[in-house]
Amino acid sequence: MTDITIIGGGNMARAIGTRAVAARRTLQILDRTPEHAAKLAAELGGDTTSGGLGDIPDGDIVVLALYYGPAKEVATHYGDTLSGKTVVDISNPINVATFDSLVVEPGTSAAEEIAALLPGANIVKAFNTTFAGPLTAGVSGGLPLDVFVASDSEEASNQVASFAAAAGLRPLRVGGLRHARELEGFQLLVMALQANPAYESFNWGTGLKIID
Amino acid sequence: MTDITIIGGGNMARAIGTRAVAARRTLQILDRTPEHAAKLAAELGGDTTSGGLGDIPDGDIVVLALYYGPAKEVATHYGDTLSGKTVVDISNPINVATFDSLVVEPGTSAAEEIAALLPGANIVKAFNTTFAGPLTAGVSGGLPLDVFVASDSEEASNQVASFAAAAGLRPLRVGGLRHARELEGFQLLVMALQANPAYESFNWGTGLKIID
Repeated sequence: MTDITIIGGGNMARAIGTRAVAARRTLQILDRTPEHAAKLAAELGGDTTSGGLGDIPDGDIVVLALYYGPAKEVATHYGDTLSGKTVVDISNPINVATFDSLVVEPGTSAAEEIAALLPGANIVKAFNTTFAGPLTAGVSGGLPLDVFVASDSEEASNQVASFAAAAGLRPLRVGGLRHARELEGFQLLVMALQANPAYESFNWGTGLKIID
Repeated sequence: MTDITIIGGGNMARAIGTRAVAARRTLQILDRTPEHAAKLAAELGGDTTSGGLGDIPDGDIVVLALYYGPAKEVATHYGDTLSGKTVVDISNPINVATFDSLVVEPGTSAAEEIAALLPGANIVKAFNTTFAGPLTAGVSGGLPLDVFVASDSEEASNQVASFAAAAGLRPLRVGGLRHARELEGFQLLVMALQANPAYESFNWGTGLKIID
């Protein structure tokens, strides 16, 4: 058994994988292209295995480190195989042509749409407000990154919050999975600011934080 | 003519008034209870007058420093009197019994509902993510507070952003007024965290910030 499976081989897979190794969790990387997964696993080090989407996700926690569209495809692909597992959706369902609107309807969220595809899994929204660069480092502006966590499962929330804390981040639990709506909505604004040339110091390297 | 009229006599009126005086803006405080307005004006100092809701708002910028319900009442009360002015809605339309939901429907916002009551005014959503304590101080954790600004009027946005910058805050322009939905939605989560005893260090004194 593995602690965490990350599905995906991109920047967010690398960032969350880096945090997982820092937290001394055993890790499995699965990617559509197994060679990408193997390369990332080797780069991350620690107790990390790899494979393709023909392999079964071994982790207690399965992180879909994917864009919204591919996350839905992978959820459909694995289906009941993920039943009983904690599945983390990190996606931001935004219109990347405009950075001005979401591609989910008002009154729902990417996380809820993915949950509908995986009725046997415990879905957690997390890591959608953490960009890959600061997440790899674990800090932004010298401060631990905040990880906003929403889920209808207290146990699944606990698992993800424990992982985040062990990885040097600050988990903040914001309630049920429907609060993914607000997490995804606000990140639309944060991403639009990164893409806006008026804010030169924002370049996909910021951290959204509640300062106390 | 006055630079800024603040309608309301509570903590947010005090906080925004403190920033206005710091920015050397002329100020008018109007409150349902004129004695409250007079008391706050005296406390704030600077070039500050006061009055009641029978008085005309003089400011180029009119800040509704009120909860959502009273803000709608005042918008209805003044109606066309506010035409041509920049009207700032700071409200968070949340269910304060539960801190778990909004009292506006998905696909709208308090700001848009208030805009519908004031078709001649230029509505700006701002200051809904800044709590009164840090806003009075202008900083949170030693960092300038972020003020997220949404409006369909570029000129009105500019006015509010200029005021915020002159007051020592960092304005961040997030686009059209409909983005008030995301600003209000996320602040629901931030407020719920303040009310949640699990987060002892959060006690209505935090600042929401994009760290760069």
